[in-house]
Amino acid sequence: MTEPLDPERIIRLEDDRVVLLDQRRLPDDQVELECRTAAEVAEAIREMAVRGAPAIGVAAAYGYALAAVQGEDLDAAAGVLGSARPTAVNLAWALAEMRAWVGDPAQRAREIHDEEVARCRAMAEHATELFTPGTRALTHCNAGGLATGGYGTAVGALRRAWERELVAHVFVGETRPLLQGSRLTAWELETLGVPLTVIADSAAASVMAGGEIDCVVTGADRIAANGDTANKIGTYGLAVLAAYHGLPLYVIAPSSTVDLATASGEGIPIEWRDAEEVTARFPARNPAFDVTPASLIAAIVTEHGVHRAPYQNTLAGELARA
Amino acid sequence: MTEPLDPERIIRLEDDRVVLLDQRRLPDDQVELECRTAAEVAEAIREMAVRGAPAIGVAAAYGYALAAVQGEDLDAAAGVLGSARPTAVNLAWALAEMRAWVGDPAQRAREIHDEEVARCRAMAEHATELFTPGTRALTHCNAGGLATGGYGTAVGALRRAWERELVAHVFVGETRPLLQGSRLTAWELETLGVPLTVIADSAAASVMAGGEIDCVVTGADRIAANGDTANKIGTYGLAVLAAYHGLPLYVIAPSSTVDLATASGEGIPIEWRDAEEVTARFPARNPAFDVTPASLIAAIVTEHGVHRAPYQNTLAGELARA
Repeated sequence: MTEPLDPERIIRLEDDRVVLLDQRRLPDDQVELECRTAAEVAEAIREMAVRGAPAIGVAAAYGYALAAVQGEDLDAAAGVLGSARPTAVNLAWALAEMRAWVGDPAQRAREIHDEEVARCRAMAEHATELFTPGTRALTHCNAGGLATGGYGTAVGALRRAWERELVAHVFVGETRPLLQGSRLTAWELETLGVPLTVIADSAAASVMAGGEIDCVVTGADRIAANGDTANKIGTYGLAVLAAYHGLPLYVIAPSSTVDLATASGEGIPIEWRDAEEVTARFPARNPAFDVTPASLIAAIVTEHGVHRAPYQNTLAGELARA
Repeated sequence: MTEPLDPERIIRLEDDRVVLLDQRRLPDDQVELECRTAAEVAEAIREMAVRGAPAIGVAAAYGYALAAVQGEDLDAAAGVLGSARPTAVNLAWALAEMRAWVGDPAQRAREIHDEEVARCRAMAEHATELFTPGTRALTHCNAGGLATGGYGTAVGALRRAWERELVAHVFVGETRPLLQGSRLTAWELETLGVPLTVIADSAAASVMAGGEIDCVVTGADRIAANGDTANKIGTYGLAVLAAYHGLPLYVIAPSSTVDLATASGEGIPIEWRDAEEVTARFPARNPAFDVTPASLIAAIVTEHGVHRAPYQNTLAGELARA
């Protein structure tokens, strides 16, 4: 099997197109999707052919660079890319970076991609202090190489900790409705050789009660200044369950995911996706994210280090200085 | 559409066969499955063509009566039926009832079926005291007519309370991996006209946090003497989440589900089903049930009334006297 985590395989800019691995069809099919306009990149983001907060930031940067190559109206391109999905702040962050850049857009987009992967590697090193030999972790959704353009946030941390013989086993919530856990995270961990067990999301509590989980490790889609964190629907519930069972929740996310302009989780827009992702036949509601209050988060790891409460000081303060 | 909750449609004994509505194919297809031997009934239970603790008790009773009609070895028939699934105590209860009966087995099996439906109706009346006008409830899995041979435990209570204008809306967890919530409970509620919204199991916490749920109402597969309750995987997690959000969890179950011989939840066997129900491709674990400690249960409703802690006195004591 091709190494699935090569950043160029996940997403890249070619002369007149953005090419990305269609994550909707993994792991059964490794199919590339080609986008020839910023609108097509936005569509790929909206339809979750590419997903994960850092990865959609990278996709937006490439989409903007593509628009520049194609001679599109750059304000319109930024508009369509920035509104593709509402919750992850990385989209807006990447577009702001692109618009502030005065050189070659393709060069800056590739830099953003490289920087995100480098941030993941730095986070993974910082996060090793959170694990002790034999740690058994639960993760949710996919905060892996696919979600970040390479290496991964939560999965990157677990991968590095496993290489250093700190993490022994990873439980993976399947993550309904789109099964990013059982499709993408399980695939990445298997490729890396990390021992894993997939569970239905609703089985997490009983596995915790059975004493088989030492910590919960997730990524994030947006972290407010006070540490409140939006992430894939179900993360908040896992946070409550972890607290009840005395387990720490660690959030691993780059600074591009931190939104100092949003004071708390109440200000984070939560995307509601099509009810048909849950059931086509009956009335349904399909929130794609939820917000975990900072009080339930034991540590937030960025590329700058391991931050603990009060996050206004340790996270927002440090990032504002950075 | 045919009224789906007619007890005879759900399961019945004919001259030389047990006929049941194959719940694996609902709601898309209403297909009857015919079982000609006790072993075939056991297979239907094991493969969940019929599921739900009271319903598999009824199925076992009919299977035993079928074995008698067919001249099968009754000890062997009871053995194969009793071991079809391990967690629900109703299987063993129904078979003990059948073996203790000295008259026509078919008559007693039909009585057991009728009694289960009558118990559901009685529970639903008792449970009305738990709801106030406008109550918005969350339920999990299917504790409806399909699960009980007619009317339902949790769904029966919600149905009756809705008829009395006490319950206004029901959120239904889809209940992975087999989706009994989004397939069966949603179908039953829609047929009854009860307003419903299906959510991914992992969305329950955020809906609670949003203030849209007033109580959690579930059935049970086995209730230990101290009130610890085994039910569909995910119930324990909902119990923790409900407690965190200050919401009561109500368990609605007939006395045939109460196992006074098991002191606490630790003694309840938890079925692990085939990992392929979760994912065929990666290592997975698929516990079908979990145990909710009595401390997280606000009330247990049986046909005898509404019981509250300490359950050793109010539940076990009353049932032992009954």
